[in-house]
Amino acid sequence: MEKKLQELKRRLAEVADLQNAAAMLSWDQQTYMPPGGAEARGNQLGTLSSIAHRKFVSDEMGQLLEDLESYTDELDPDSDEARLIQVVRRNFDKKTKVPSEFVAEFSRVRSRAHGAWEEARENDDFAHFQPHLEKIVEMCREYADFFAPYDHVYDPLLDRYEPGMKTESVQDIFSELRPLQVELIEAIGDRDQVDDSFLHQQFEEKKQWDFGEKVITKFGYDWTRGRQDKATHPFTIHFGVGDVRITTRIDPEFLNSGLFSTLHEGGHAIYEQGVSSDLERTTLAEGASLAIHESQSRMYENLLGRSYPFWSYFYPQLQEVFPSQLGNVDLDTFYKGINKVEPSLIRVEADEATYNLHIMLRLELEIALMERELEVADLPEAWNARMEDYLGLTPPNDTKGVLQDVHWSSGLFGYFSTYSLGNLVSVQLWDAIHDEIPNLTDQIREGDFSSLLAWLRENIHRHGKKFKPQELVKRAAGSEIDPAPYIRYLQGKYGEIYQL
Amino acid sequence: MEKKLQELKRRLAEVADLQNAAAMLSWDQQTYMPPGGAEARGNQLGTLSSIAHRKFVSDEMGQLLEDLESYTDELDPDSDEARLIQVVRRNFDKKTKVPSEFVAEFSRVRSRAHGAWEEARENDDFAHFQPHLEKIVEMCREYADFFAPYDHVYDPLLDRYEPGMKTESVQDIFSELRPLQVELIEAIGDRDQVDDSFLHQQFEEKKQWDFGEKVITKFGYDWTRGRQDKATHPFTIHFGVGDVRITTRIDPEFLNSGLFSTLHEGGHAIYEQGVSSDLERTTLAEGASLAIHESQSRMYENLLGRSYPFWSYFYPQLQEVFPSQLGNVDLDTFYKGINKVEPSLIRVEADEATYNLHIMLRLELEIALMERELEVADLPEAWNARMEDYLGLTPPNDTKGVLQDVHWSSGLFGYFSTYSLGNLVSVQLWDAIHDEIPNLTDQIREGDFSSLLAWLRENIHRHGKKFKPQELVKRAAGSEIDPAPYIRYLQGKYGEIYQL
Repeated sequence: MEKKLQELKRRLAEVADLQNAAAMLSWDQQTYMPPGGAEARGNQLGTLSSIAHRKFVSDEMGQLLEDLESYTDELDPDSDEARLIQVVRRNFDKKTKVPSEFVAEFSRVRSRAHGAWEEARENDDFAHFQPHLEKIVEMCREYADFFAPYDHVYDPLLDRYEPGMKTESVQDIFSELRPLQVELIEAIGDRDQVDDSFLHQQFEEKKQWDFGEKVITKFGYDWTRGRQDKATHPFTIHFGVGDVRITTRIDPEFLNSGLFSTLHEGGHAIYEQGVSSDLERTTLAEGASLAIHESQSRMYENLLGRSYPFWSYFYPQLQEVFPSQLGNVDLDTFYKGINKVEPSLIRVEADEATYNLHIMLRLELEIALMERELEVADLPEAWNARMEDYLGLTPPNDTKGVLQDVHWSSGLFGYFSTYSLGNLVSVQLWDAIHDEIPNLTDQIREGDFSSLLAWLRENIHRHGKKFKPQELVKRAAGSEIDPAPYIRYLQGKYGEIYQL
Repeated sequence: MEKKLQELKRRLAEVADLQNAAAMLSWDQQTYMPPGGAEARGNQLGTLSSIAHRKFVSDEMGQLLEDLESYTDELDPDSDEARLIQVVRRNFDKKTKVPSEFVAEFSRVRSRAHGAWEEARENDDFAHFQPHLEKIVEMCREYADFFAPYDHVYDPLLDRYEPGMKTESVQDIFSELRPLQVELIEAIGDRDQVDDSFLHQQFEEKKQWDFGEKVITKFGYDWTRGRQDKATHPFTIHFGVGDVRITTRIDPEFLNSGLFSTLHEGGHAIYEQGVSSDLERTTLAEGASLAIHESQSRMYENLLGRSYPFWSYFYPQLQEVFPSQLGNVDLDTFYKGINKVEPSLIRVEADEATYNLHIMLRLELEIALMERELEVADLPEAWNARMEDYLGLTPPNDTKGVLQDVHWSSGLFGYFSTYSLGNLVSVQLWDAIHDEIPNLTDQIREGDFSSLLAWLRENIHRHGKKFKPQELVKRAAGSEIDPAPYIRYLQGKYGEIYQL
């Protein structure tokens, strides 16, 4: 049995190497690749993912997993080995249920849809994208049907990103969250707006870059195992725990853009750098789920990076870097400015208080599409109606509305809610950390982020993908995903800033 | 048969994708990879090369090649298809002799050795690199033994880079060359030295970088299909004809270093960019051999880039970029300065007249290591002794001696002599081009490099790996590799500069 386990690990290592190589190619595609490289890169990525897939769903792998089934009973159920076999088994069953012809066809459909989406955005022409999106929605339903019977047609889609999470749970969580968030935003709307004009000045790119790197260095990002580069759409990517890279995008006329992007991606990367090296080259050597990942990025970006204690330490340093821009702006004004709440049209530019509403809108539309309650043709209207309901805004065109995100054109149905779930988890963990480290706020005020990192390493990072997200949250925070702490956090924070 | 040919091409495309992906990983390893990524990168490269190897030497491939054997008789012997089958057959026979476990292990060993070499250089500590090099030498011998019986243990190593070339031929060519080069250098040594002190000033890095890029843009390097980055040891690499990248190393206190490195790598890259796109994703989609490759880089670097007509055009522009450094240096002085002959320690900084002696030294040491006439432990001493014999110099430390080149750490035994063979070929081609384009010198003087490029595209570049190097040289220049034209070239050029 020990031998079979070794053979399983050998095969998984080969698959992991192929996936990490593909990740490297993708990193280059988004950072340095010249345009002439696109076609060959597509071929290379296609070949690598197809070989990795075939190796993972091979008969030999199936046989090994079957043979190892009984062996798990002999193992400590929380051991790396028992969990590995369990997770691989689960992934194997999922992947073998989807015929490879479907995978290939879906890949072609998405590739065409992505091009059509780009054209539709350029010409503000939803009708051009519509037939492609219809095809994608239809294929997502087909995908779900490979997993029938299910409680809800949306469950198999959600499960791709959030193992074990059910549509009903997400709906319950969001039903509790929505009225409270809408109420909060309305209350803020009745108050005087804070000033953030000082954030919209000229900030030299190189200085922004260096300051962001200085902050995440303090957080514990390890530069011997990573680096930062520029990308149009910032992302974090890893090729093993020894090489976890981030990217950012600097706006020379708006301080928030590059800075909080670096903090956000830094949070993702610190997570990946903290995965136990024992899990290297196995299926478990990455974050537990998208929501758990987002809990880490949002914690470093928002709970820490937009907090008063954090800036008590860092603001004088930032003022030194930008004396003419910020020399006359005091800490209180700065703190309020970076936390300004204002309903806006674009998700990726939304503040903490309105962000989740952007997500709920998308989740509800996705579910309605899957349930056949909504036709793709009616999507722009449904989008705009909800924007009006939740945020009091109507997009002037579809490019700033239903066409704004890349996700649907890439077939990523089931993905959006993980952003909001991540927000919720971040606060649950944050509360748990403060319970266990009572003087954490003082430490942060002194620029000491080491016990925070130690807690996250111990309770979240090192486990990698060993535990399902709900189980991991319960182990670390004492309860499953719960919106109440997040609402309390928003109310406390914005109650103070806007004197509600 | 047509179907079988298509199947062969499909399989070759998969192998090419894997090799191009590995090349991408290697590019990153030498440009941007953080140190923590080394171990995982070694695994990834090992896995990719092992899968590519297994796919290439598969039984199915063997059967296809056997089936297609008779088909080649029906084809035009110079057609892409006939040549492809022939070259693949030859590579298949070579590769089936090397077990895939060896290939994977060699890849891992080299990856580790490369890291150790970098550390050894930093600390001038050959002993740190020694065990890694011993392992590499041992594995090179093992490699050669897969091809026993051979005329010489070094033949199979040479054949990896110079298909069809024999150790004895190279030794013959070098025996003819060595006394003439030594004689030339002695004659130069008796003359007054030219002044090149103006090259050793502060030259702003960014301006050097931009000037180098400007020159190769004029040469015809296509930036939509490439880019330039920094690397400790400059190299050119391709991931398809649409993505051919170069790297350089700038010395802010010495103009030659970055400039001629960019011209040199530009020559390699222009070659790869010129391979016919019909050959893409086949075994033929790259340069014919290292010597042919070097003939292109040396032609652009030396025959063109260190020539008087070239600088008649570019020198005024360079003076504009560096007015305080070069404003008072006239063209004749500059031309002599960049062509100064002076025995020196570092191969990549050696002048045209002494360069080949650096190569002969390495070739002799490699052959001695392979023949077990020399132990790795004694290599620094043997290196220094030969440096004294050939160039009258003793390296002050191993970093400037035996540790200076990346090649051995990368397992590239058999490689060095191709640099000198490339020098020889470059002049043979240069003579042929001038025969066919009588006013080429005038064109160069006017900054017009288009007919030069057109000739190279037609006679060398587009063919890729279709022809063996000796055959290609004969087709293009009318004779096989021959040292006589090169010696005439050196005597003519330096006879004038040093008034011999």
